[in-house]
Amino acid sequence: MPVPAEFDRLRVVLVSTRNPLNIGAAARAMSNFGFSRLRLVNPYSVAYREARSAVGASSVLASAEQFKDLAEAVADCTLVVGTTAVRHRELQHPLQSLPKGAPLLRNRLASSPVALLFGSEKVGLSNRDLSFCHWVMRIPTRERNISMNLGQAVSVCLYELARNPKTPRQSEKPQLAPAGEIDRITMILLEVLRTSGYLTPSRTAPAEEKVRRLVRRLNLSAHDSQLWLGILRQIAWKIRLGEELPE
Amino acid sequence: MPVPAEFDRLRVVLVSTRNPLNIGAAARAMSNFGFSRLRLVNPYSVAYREARSAVGASSVLASAEQFKDLAEAVADCTLVVGTTAVRHRELQHPLQSLPKGAPLLRNRLASSPVALLFGSEKVGLSNRDLSFCHWVMRIPTRERNISMNLGQAVSVCLYELARNPKTPRQSEKPQLAPAGEIDRITMILLEVLRTSGYLTPSRTAPAEEKVRRLVRRLNLSAHDSQLWLGILRQIAWKIRLGEELPE
Repeated sequence: MPVPAEFDRLRVVLVSTRNPLNIGAAARAMSNFGFSRLRLVNPYSVAYREARSAVGASSVLASAEQFKDLAEAVADCTLVVGTTAVRHRELQHPLQSLPKGAPLLRNRLASSPVALLFGSEKVGLSNRDLSFCHWVMRIPTRERNISMNLGQAVSVCLYELARNPKTPRQSEKPQLAPAGEIDRITMILLEVLRTSGYLTPSRTAPAEEKVRRLVRRLNLSAHDSQLWLGILRQIAWKIRLGEELPE
Repeated sequence: MPVPAEFDRLRVVLVSTRNPLNIGAAARAMSNFGFSRLRLVNPYSVAYREARSAVGASSVLASAEQFKDLAEAVADCTLVVGTTAVRHRELQHPLQSLPKGAPLLRNRLASSPVALLFGSEKVGLSNRDLSFCHWVMRIPTRERNISMNLGQAVSVCLYELARNPKTPRQSEKPQLAPAGEIDRITMILLEVLRTSGYLTPSRTAPAEEKVRRLVRRLNLSAHDSQLWLGILRQIAWKIRLGEELPE
């Protein structure tokens, strides 16, 4: 089975992984199912070193990239999807089961980079991590034993992605803006919301996360994101101007 | 998701497993997907003891059964299926891919016990082991990296078995905002764009239409449109305030 070209567009992103065995297991699962782009956000440095020096460490591990912050790790992706085993988390996100979500992910991979996020062994993805996601994908485990081993979770997700050999149809939707662009919009909007008094000047994580999710739900095209960026910059400039006038 | 009654009829059979971590991982995957009958054939006794005494060892492990010979371990089953990652083994057996084989297995589970066999880490199932099988199920890995981690292989197989394509659940799309609401947003945005200098103060139809289309392309939900309306009102108020300050 040759590896479909679009598999190279998937970024498997491990956030704050603690156990080197799990990093190795994730890399092996990637290799099994034909994926190659591994990104590590803020891993325990010991775990990362041990995983890379392990006997039989794969080429996937050798070419893994490391990031300090999740925002950087997903900046080139037009779709960012978090994974969870939890069903009724107070998610402010659309939730798709793995069998339903995987085809959506594959459709997007046909045209642009996609990030699939896995949280740490103990706590999964944080609310901040999730605020960078467009939607969340749930592995359908049973109620009593929802917590999956990280390597197994990666394996099951990639199996499902590779499961359907059909080439996805090209959707004719406009090209979506990459996450880095959406993040710039979020930053300027946050500034405007603070200077305008919609948010309090003191930065609070829940408020920022709410705005981050709000902007991601817009699903802006690359073209429109440019327009909105221009609009927001002008608004920010105007408000700053008003602020600076002598009383 | 309640566990279907027939899941209790599946026997997951690990043959000659060497690594206690893999026994534990298999048990955890079973627990995740709602299976409970684990059978171990001729495991390294050390591995078995360690797995059972591991912290957090599950009830699956506690109730695992041990057998000297594969024949005994599958004696009560009407269907015995071996697993392999290999494609062109000189198999004298019918070969099914996992997505095709799993429904066959589930059909049989509806009426009688079925055994699913996993071989040892190094060599998989022997020809003797395979001779007890009715057919063989292949996990579709890529040519270059066919060998899967045992715990991951169990996980992927059980996921596929538990994956229920029959209940197509409607993903609930959020209710979209009515046009009147979208229009209010457009009006306030237009005002902000004029007072901020993004648009010229003189109203031109093409510019207004462009903004109107831009807002409609957002496909705002009823909920989000309220949020954006609040945001824009605050921004408009702030900009007006700046304008009204004495020069």
